[in-house]
Amino acid sequence: MKINNILFTGRLIKELDLLLGSCEALEGRALRFISESNVTSEDLAWADAYVAFQPTENFHFGHIKWVHSLGAGVDRYTALGKWPENVLLTRTITSFGQKIGEYTLSYMLKDLQHHYTFRDQQGRGEWKMVAPRALNEMKVVIFGTGEIGQEVARILAYFGVKVYGVSRSGVSKEYYSKVMPLNRVEDGCLIEADYVVNTLPLTEETERLFDDSFFGKLNQAVFINVGRGGTVDHEALLGALDRGNLKAAVLDVFEEEPLPVGSPLWNHRGVTITPHISAITTPEEAVTCFLETLECVESGGKLRNAVDVVRGY
Amino acid sequence: MKINNILFTGRLIKELDLLLGSCEALEGRALRFISESNVTSEDLAWADAYVAFQPTENFHFGHIKWVHSLGAGVDRYTALGKWPENVLLTRTITSFGQKIGEYTLSYMLKDLQHHYTFRDQQGRGEWKMVAPRALNEMKVVIFGTGEIGQEVARILAYFGVKVYGVSRSGVSKEYYSKVMPLNRVEDGCLIEADYVVNTLPLTEETERLFDDSFFGKLNQAVFINVGRGGTVDHEALLGALDRGNLKAAVLDVFEEEPLPVGSPLWNHRGVTITPHISAITTPEEAVTCFLETLECVESGGKLRNAVDVVRGY
Repeated sequence: MKINNILFTGRLIKELDLLLGSCEALEGRALRFISESNVTSEDLAWADAYVAFQPTENFHFGHIKWVHSLGAGVDRYTALGKWPENVLLTRTITSFGQKIGEYTLSYMLKDLQHHYTFRDQQGRGEWKMVAPRALNEMKVVIFGTGEIGQEVARILAYFGVKVYGVSRSGVSKEYYSKVMPLNRVEDGCLIEADYVVNTLPLTEETERLFDDSFFGKLNQAVFINVGRGGTVDHEALLGALDRGNLKAAVLDVFEEEPLPVGSPLWNHRGVTITPHISAITTPEEAVTCFLETLECVESGGKLRNAVDVVRGY
Repeated sequence: MKINNILFTGRLIKELDLLLGSCEALEGRALRFISESNVTSEDLAWADAYVAFQPTENFHFGHIKWVHSLGAGVDRYTALGKWPENVLLTRTITSFGQKIGEYTLSYMLKDLQHHYTFRDQQGRGEWKMVAPRALNEMKVVIFGTGEIGQEVARILAYFGVKVYGVSRSGVSKEYYSKVMPLNRVEDGCLIEADYVVNTLPLTEETERLFDDSFFGKLNQAVFINVGRGGTVDHEALLGALDRGNLKAAVLDVFEEEPLPVGSPLWNHRGVTITPHISAITTPEEAVTCFLETLECVESGGKLRNAVDVVRGY
């Protein structure tokens, strides 16, 4: 298909304008870079392609043929309701896996190496040895065996961590010592898990997946969410922290972002909040992936980042 | 050589007594487990072998034939002065490299992932994205290319970190993109270093190696010391923090341990202090290494953990 008019909106438009404004690969095309609140219905009607992290509030398909998500998650697009059959949806795939792997590992090591214990001791001028725990004694359950989950698994397995996976199909994947289907996760794996890492997208199947019944099976685990906030019942999570099923929670994603001021998550002792930074798309990465995808879209080449809108990822 | 009387002293004696007291491999031998302050001159005169982290204050060789250090560092032994030619010195080698690697990586990731920035923001209920920096953009200089240094290098190289090494000989080693001799470290490598990791033992050559002139070549680097405290001029280190040559220092080892109450290191904003825990010997590891070494000592097998007392490691 031929793409002439491209509408860019959202957080990165200034940087994208700078990087793409004089880009040879885009010659002959018309580009608009407009902040979300300034996108008009006419802009949408004008566009062949829409490139953004999410749809604008006034979003309509007009004769858009291709929607490209600047993030890896596409739930805000699929939540639009019925997706027109002839509109292609693609998402950005870059080094998200490596990034999320380093984020996850950083918070595991912070815990295993007792960073805050030593920081508090230093504040008191106290010298007291506490032995760090080694990664190769840990058991981790990763929800998701896709590009991101598998990269987290690779990094952890390198350190000798025992890694269990959970996916829709339960099909074995490299780096996981075992993969279980979403609807048959073994209680034994959850009971012995030191860490549970969620990398799943938000779909009908994963919405509120992490609820009272799930958390009730854990025993002093640390829950790390780098997938989507909507997969978690946060009231259940707070209860699990209070009851000791969870030792701590590290949350990078939330149902509403920024996390609202009044949320009890902000102040709970056991909760670490980061502002959705575990896999930030840099402008350069966004541009690289966008241009590669555009080329495939126009040449009819095989897309590795097309989204199955029904499946939701 | 035959070892009959073995004297154990120091931090782990209770645990060692439990693990070794009824150990078959030691049958027929006499064992004493005595706290450091209670070791008498007679105990030392009685012993064929002395097993401890360090010599007692009243230490004398008597007819000790073998000294086994429960730690990896042996500088407290070599500092005794002239070492009798016929006394063997061995040290504990276990998974120190992996442990120190995880310690080092944990503090690098804490920095790259802005843990304290996000913790402070959370305290204020503030949502502000700051992009983590990736390990594969980092340059690290590791002082030491021995068992420990090389293991740190292996872990960092796995993440795409550019690793330079410094050793006495300057001989190339796996995982290091370049190894420089101690007396010809290139200024260029120091200027571009994001992290400097010291794993060196304390010897005549390394004493006060990290001084004003060394730190003056760094540019906003983080200095991580997991080797020995005596390698660092701590006044110079504090000056380098104040001048910006160092961005931060993570110190696990000190000339005097516990770090004295009055030390200015305790309260400096840029300094993280941990109580010599980056490579704690667990009782089980100590026992494994001790028994293996004993067997080699008695059978005349090749020792991989014998110390060259003149070289100092």
